[in-house]
Amino acid sequence: MKRPLILVSNDDGVQAKGLNELIHMLKPLGDVIAMAPSEPRSGAACSLTVSLPVKYGLVHNEDGLLVFKCSGTPVDCVKLALDSVLDTRPDIIISGINHGDNSAVNVHYSGTMGVALEGCMKGIPSIGFSLCNHNPDADFTPASPYVRRITEEVLQRGLPAGVCLNVNFPDTPFYKGIRICRQTKGVWKREWMKRSHPNGGDYYWLTGEFVEHDEEEDSDHWALNHDYVAITPTLIDMTAYGMMEEMKHWNLEL
Amino acid sequence: MKRPLILVSNDDGVQAKGLNELIHMLKPLGDVIAMAPSEPRSGAACSLTVSLPVKYGLVHNEDGLLVFKCSGTPVDCVKLALDSVLDTRPDIIISGINHGDNSAVNVHYSGTMGVALEGCMKGIPSIGFSLCNHNPDADFTPASPYVRRITEEVLQRGLPAGVCLNVNFPDTPFYKGIRICRQTKGVWKREWMKRSHPNGGDYYWLTGEFVEHDEEEDSDHWALNHDYVAITPTLIDMTAYGMMEEMKHWNLEL
Repeated sequence: MKRPLILVSNDDGVQAKGLNELIHMLKPLGDVIAMAPSEPRSGAACSLTVSLPVKYGLVHNEDGLLVFKCSGTPVDCVKLALDSVLDTRPDIIISGINHGDNSAVNVHYSGTMGVALEGCMKGIPSIGFSLCNHNPDADFTPASPYVRRITEEVLQRGLPAGVCLNVNFPDTPFYKGIRICRQTKGVWKREWMKRSHPNGGDYYWLTGEFVEHDEEEDSDHWALNHDYVAITPTLIDMTAYGMMEEMKHWNLEL
Repeated sequence: MKRPLILVSNDDGVQAKGLNELIHMLKPLGDVIAMAPSEPRSGAACSLTVSLPVKYGLVHNEDGLLVFKCSGTPVDCVKLALDSVLDTRPDIIISGINHGDNSAVNVHYSGTMGVALEGCMKGIPSIGFSLCNHNPDADFTPASPYVRRITEEVLQRGLPAGVCLNVNFPDTPFYKGIRICRQTKGVWKREWMKRSHPNGGDYYWLTGEFVEHDEEEDSDHWALNHDYVAITPTLIDMTAYGMMEEMKHWNLEL
């Protein structure tokens, strides 16, 4: 049987421990090609490089593993790998493992999930993996058997068109198991820290505190807060279908 | 009755014609405060400025209108305006008018829709307006009465929690009316143009061609292709609810 072709990317950049650990976890499952941003790109979401040219280059080549760095965003990495680097279509696209969680509304800001959403838009089964720990030297060991199990299962079953997976690992050495979740409702508050330059002028650092509006057992935060791996199946179709019929009765025509 | 407070932003930057036309369209409806990126930020999606400080400054101040420029992304603009600039919460957040369409899967890449999604995440009724014309001097006149009508209706009715509007105008001087739509299915193909530097080395420009998989009458592309204004109600909850039950039967536990 032909070995699966696995395309890997992330948003923490080609040097990140999470990417390199992920590659080692996936190597037993197939041929791995990674194309990751040359610099960290946290918070890149699905952003694109529109006004600058994008370049890529090979940084690592060994039997069954190629690693490229790319000057673009995480989504650019996927687009460029599919369009201009790979001869064959990958069987799966895996992103991460992100240093930091991408649960709840953070799916919208996440470059890790940008990779998975882009893969999904291209019709390829795609998974974003994230660990709830921002430390550059975080321990990804407990995630390893779950990364393999989830990836194997998706390789075997595929995913429905338009659905990718957002997988978040709690920051704990032992997981109680897996929960299939929905995106937690909540809101970021107090998002900026003001600082003053010694020569005058204020500037702001993005920070913030996430306030949950939601403590139900099917939410991804509940799972993570209770030491479960949270898998949130995620749609690329963002249409509010429930609103369409109602809006037809609005007074919108001139 | 108190005049509504309208927060405006975009992704084409504070100098863009589309932003300035939008401000003039909205001024009769309320007090307008704009906070827009100092430079064009097309394709910014919901990206955040994580590793650099963010600054803003006032560029225009007249009766009932304040315009600020901000060094950050479109989403940063909304976050900073809400957190650090405005004394009161805006009644509505309006983004655009974008030079170029944000229909179909482009909602994921769009900084214009990043603004609307961020506003929606903050619980404020939010609308992104886009015109299917990339020309910096595009004619926004035909959109004007529709921008006002849609904004007035949202000011009066509000929007359900977690729903914002993605409004796209066709590139034609006369609109046939409004259609309430869903996101068109389709895929970007042939996305990169390769160029060579005279001193050696290849680089790539992002381009591409959108291939529709979908010609049904409720899609936003059908509306735009038939000279209708397309309003796509859009969710911030991306959970694939239909997939949750199925995945509970997967073989995921170790």
